[in-house]
This record gives sequence, C-alpha cells and structure tokens, in this order.
Amino acid sequence: MLPSLKNDLLLRALRREPTDTTPVWVMRQAGRYLPEYRTTRAKAGSFMALAQNPELACEVTLQPLRRFELDAAILFSDILTIPDAMGLGLSFAQGEGPQFARPVRSRADVERLGVPDMESELRYVMDAVRLIRRELDGRVPLIGFSGSPWTLACYMVEGEGSRDFATAKAMCWNEPALAHTLLDTLAKSVAAYLIAQAAAGVQVLMIFDTWGGLLSPSAYREFSLRYMARVVEVLKADTHARDLPVILFSKGAAAHLADMADTGCAALGVDWTIDLADARRAVNSKVALQGNLDPAVLRANPEIIRREVRNILDSYGNHPGHVFNFGHGITPEVDPEHVKVLVDEVHSYSRQLRGR
Amino acid sequence: MLPSLKNDLLLRALRREPTDTTPVWVMRQAGRYLPEYRTTRAKAGSFMALAQNPELACEVTLQPLRRFELDAAILFSDILTIPDAMGLGLSFAQGEGPQFARPVRSRADVERLGVPDMESELRYVMDAVRLIRRELDGRVPLIGFSGSPWTLACYMVEGEGSRDFATAKAMCWNEPALAHTLLDTLAKSVAAYLIAQAAAGVQVLMIFDTWGGLLSPSAYREFSLRYMARVVEVLKADTHARDLPVILFSKGAAAHLADMADTGCAALGVDWTIDLADARRAVNSKVALQGNLDPAVLRANPEIIRREVRNILDSYGNHPGHVFNFGHGITPEVDPEHVKVLVDEVHSYSRQLRGR
Repeated sequence: MLPSLKNDLLLRALRREPTDTTPVWVMRQAGRYLPEYRTTRAKAGSFMALAQNPELACEVTLQPLRRFELDAAILFSDILTIPDAMGLGLSFAQGEGPQFARPVRSRADVERLGVPDMESELRYVMDAVRLIRRELDGRVPLIGFSGSPWTLACYMVEGEGSRDFATAKAMCWNEPALAHTLLDTLAKSVAAYLIAQAAAGVQVLMIFDTWGGLLSPSAYREFSLRYMARVVEVLKADTHARDLPVILFSKGAAAHLADMADTGCAALGVDWTIDLADARRAVNSKVALQGNLDPAVLRANPEIIRREVRNILDSYGNHPGHVFNFGHGITPEVDPEHVKVLVDEVHSYSRQLRGR
Repeated sequence: MLPSLKNDLLLRALRREPTDTTPVWVMRQAGRYLPEYRTTRAKAGSFMALAQNPELACEVTLQPLRRFELDAAILFSDILTIPDAMGLGLSFAQGEGPQFARPVRSRADVERLGVPDMESELRYVMDAVRLIRRELDGRVPLIGFSGSPWTLACYMVEGEGSRDFATAKAMCWNEPALAHTLLDTLAKSVAAYLIAQAAAGVQVLMIFDTWGGLLSPSAYREFSLRYMARVVEVLKADTHARDLPVILFSKGAAAHLADMADTGCAALGVDWTIDLADARRAVNSKVALQGNLDPAVLRANPEIIRREVRNILDSYGNHPGHVFNFGHGITPEVDPEHVKVLVDEVHSYSRQLRGR
C-alpha cells in the first residue's frame, strides 16, 4: 500500500480545479546545477550508469526536493531510453549530446525494431519508479515521462543531436511510408512505456517533443502531433494510465497549442515565446498550461527573478489550471539559491493573487 | 554611371507590384555547398580573409548567379563585421562559429565602443559593393545587409555563439540601462553601415535578427524590435537609403509579424514554422513577405522539392508581394543541382499560377 498524497496541488491544477497556491516544479530539476547531483553522477561513472541504477536514480530524483519546496518530483531518466532498449546503443560522450552506435536509416533498420518489453528491457526505469514512490512517502506526486515519437525518430535517424535534423526530415520527405512505419512503432512503444510507468506508480505522464518546433505546420501535424495524439488515445484506453493527467510539450510550437489541446491531454507545456494570457486564449481554457519562464532568468539577480515570476503569474491571471515551470530545462551554471528564490516567490505571490 | 537594371522582379515584388514571375534568391546562396566557393575560400586562407578581400568577395557573390537563374545577388560578408570594426577581434576557428577576442561585459567595455567610420574601418565592404555592382552590370539587384542590433549584442556580450545567449540576456535583466546604451550604439552603427552600403550601390537592405526569437514577447519588443525600428527610421530620413526597400528578418518570431510590419519596412523574412497564408493575414498585406521553405527540403528528391515549392507558392496565392526564399541559410551538404531544381520550379510554377 502506497501512502496517500500529502501535497496534491499539481494534480488539482492539472485537473483545472481551484488551488490556493500555484504548484511549481522545474524541468531538469535534478541536474548538474546541484553539487550533490554532480557527486552522485561522478560515483555512477557515466550518465547512463546513473540513469540505469535505480538507487542512484532515486537519490538524484529526491535531491532537489530536499532543497526546495517543489510540488512535484520527476523521474530521473533520459528521453532516449526506448531506442536504447531497441538495441541502438545509446551513449553520451563527455560534454557532448547523445549518440547512437546503430542509427536507423534503411527499411531493414526500421523493420528490425520491435516494441521493447518494458518489465525486462526497461526494468531499471520501473524499479526506479517503485523505489522513488516508496521514498517519496506521498510527499508530492511523481511525474513519469517519455520522448515523443517524432523526437525519438529524430535522434534515431540522425544518430546524434543536430541543429536541423535534416536526415530525419529527408526520410519523411523521400520515404514517407517508411517514416510512418517507424513513427507507428515508436507511438506503440511510447504508449507501452508510459503505461508501464503508470503501473509502477507514476502519477502524472509527460511527453517531451523537443524537436516538433523544427517542422513546418503541415509536417508538424503529420509527423509529430498525429503520433502524440495516438499515444494519448492508447493511454486513455488503459486501466493503469486512464486516470493520469497527460502533459504534452512541443518546444517552439506555440502556434499549435489549439491543435494540441484537442488530443485529449490534460495540459500543455508552453515555452516563453508566447504570453500565457495569449496561450490561455488559444486553448480556450480546455486544458491546463505549464510554464513559461525563460530559464535564462535564473542568471538574473533575485529581485529580477521575483519580478519575472510575478509577470508570469499575472499573465496567467486568477484562473485555475496553471503549473509554474520553465519553457526549457535548467542549465548547469545556475546558482541553486536562485531556484529557491523562484520557488518561494511562485508560492507566496500566487497566494497573494488568489486573495485579491 | 551604373547600367540600368535588366531584372527588377525583386524590386517590384518588394514594392508589392504585380509581377509575372515570383522572384527567388537563397539565403547563403554564396556558400560552402558550391565547390567553386570552397576553392576560392581555400585560396583566401580564412573566412575573414575572404570577406575582407573585395575581389574574392565579388567572385563568390557572383558564383551562384552563374549556375542558377537567381533574381538577386547578396553581398558576400558576415553579420559581425560591425563589432569587428569596433575592435572586438572577430575570428572563426575551423569548423566553429564566430569568436570575439574581447567580448563586451562591463560599463567600461560598452562606453569604449564608438560608431565605426564606414569608409575607413569598413572600407573593404564598400569596395566589395562597388566592385560587385560593376561586375553585375545590371543583371539583378544587389542586396546589402547587417546583423540586427540585438543579434550583434548577443555575440558581443556572449563572446561567441550560444544555444541560449544567457549572458547577453542577463545583461538585459541585471543592467537594462547598460544594455540599452549598447543597443543604442549598435542601432546607430547599423544605420550608418546600411547607409554607407546604399551610397556604395546596394539596391535592397536586409537586417538579419537571427536571435530575436530567443526572447519572450515583451523582451523581443524592448531589446530587439525597438532597435530595428529605430534603424529603419534613420534609413528613411537619409537621401541614399530612403528609397531602398528594407527587409526585416527575425528568425523564430512568427508571432511578431504584425508588430514588425509597423516599423516602416518594405518586407519581412518568414521562417517555415508558419503558413504563408497565415503570415499574409497577420501583416494584413501591409508589407511583402520573403520565404519560407525549410532549407532541409533540399535534402529531398527533386520531385519532392518541386512539390514543396508549389505548396509555398500556393499558400501565398495569386497576390503581389512575394519573394521566394528559405526560412534559414542553405547548408553545406546540399547538392547544387537541387538548388537549380528549386529556382526553376519557382519561376515556372509561379508563371503558371499567374495565368489562372
């Protein structure tokens, strides 16, 4: 039996119920800006060794919660665990982005791919989820996540990070049937992965579509949004996942918020290139919104951080359905004290705002 | 006396006059994808040596016009010539982006900066313009350009390329008065630079705001758009520049097209994250639009390139005021034959479209 949830602010905000405080968590809150993270990471030896060790993954997941009054924990993992489990051989060279030893280029490469078995090939993720839930002891909800089918395809076809993912795009143009076969396998895998995380105990599901914003509007709908919608559809038909709120986040896709809100998700991540007031109008209050501070604001002085936090809260206004976050992950050079300033200001100013 | 212009399609499209063919040119059309460019570049020794040698800069400017039926030439240069002339020491390490030996960080650094003298400190640019105009012999118009004040400030404060330009943003937040002093000096310099290019013979002016899209809407208006508007204002008051159409291009800023159209510019560059039909509605036919194909399409097969060209032309529709281009520069691995396919399809399909 898992303990009941002591802080359910996040779940209530995602259901667009009124809360007396705006919940806050931070993308990549367990990360290199924390000295204790760097110590644990060094102990693990490599990023993947850290992600694949449930005890250490649990430890770094909990580290930011010891420092800050965050309203959620997010599973420490990587968005590329699925292609790694498919046999592509994921590694992170020192100071570099992800690399796959065996990228996907041909029809044979695509047809070789199967949906991984979650409780064997990705067992380390589910073990981490179970351990974190136990250690959290109901303090805050645990968010599970996956990369979106399109974002996974980007890395799998390109073989590594890229400015434009032109090789992945070329597959979409030159061999659309092949690209759709790949994305179909990935949508099935992402859905199965999120269902397994739900069964293991996560309480919220998030899909990171880091590279959806690189596409033209029609390509975004055809190669990115369509497959996220399919994942949401499968989740909504599953006993474990059905009741969990799903957050979709396509970076750089502020123009597509209305279409994204039609997928059946509970909330949308929003980057800082759109005012939250405009984003709220675009989705017509159909979903909750999560965002949308520029993470570079953490490089500013505390008084500026507080002012920018208040601007975001004012822009969303006194409506239900806001989760405070950044529009991108926190970067390594940030002073952890600045995160504390931010979290505390979200709580105190949002309470004040509710009182008006 | 300069010869009169034989192909004025670009100028007429920028004035939103009807044309029987849509003009086309390509950002970074003089670049590494051309073997003859690589040969000239090797002869020069370094990128900056190439840019600073008027004869070689003229040669690479003309190279793409020998291969393709392009409707414009664009001065071969770099967006960072102004800060280099200010004494920051620009260099390009092999395979790396730009670097400044002396970045701008303090009030003293900012106050040391003056508007460069165009005919001495940037004479190599004006000599190149004069030579290219003579060599072009009126075949097509010559486009001159500059980086935007904000984009120049990004590199000058950061000292090099960056994913988020967080140091430049931190200056805007922590020391807004200092940031505005810097941007003011840069706006004066950009205006003087474009006026000098106009006096030397360019026939169109373009401002590249590569990093405007990294800002939140309010920061974009305060730190990027405001200073581009000021540059346009100065240009409109100058005898040499007054009659030259000005194109503004903020990458990743599709949400701001309406505000940009209010600056007094003739046209806006548009990246591929918005449909041209929507962009045209956003600017209410107040300005011409230039774009907006994803340059990664050049990695596709010729038949797909033709289809995507037709989609862009159909999306703009049978209205005056469209200049075909990409939403970003062409990349080195592109097959030059694919550029020919694109240019020819723009011409033949747009003629067909006018006939309807």
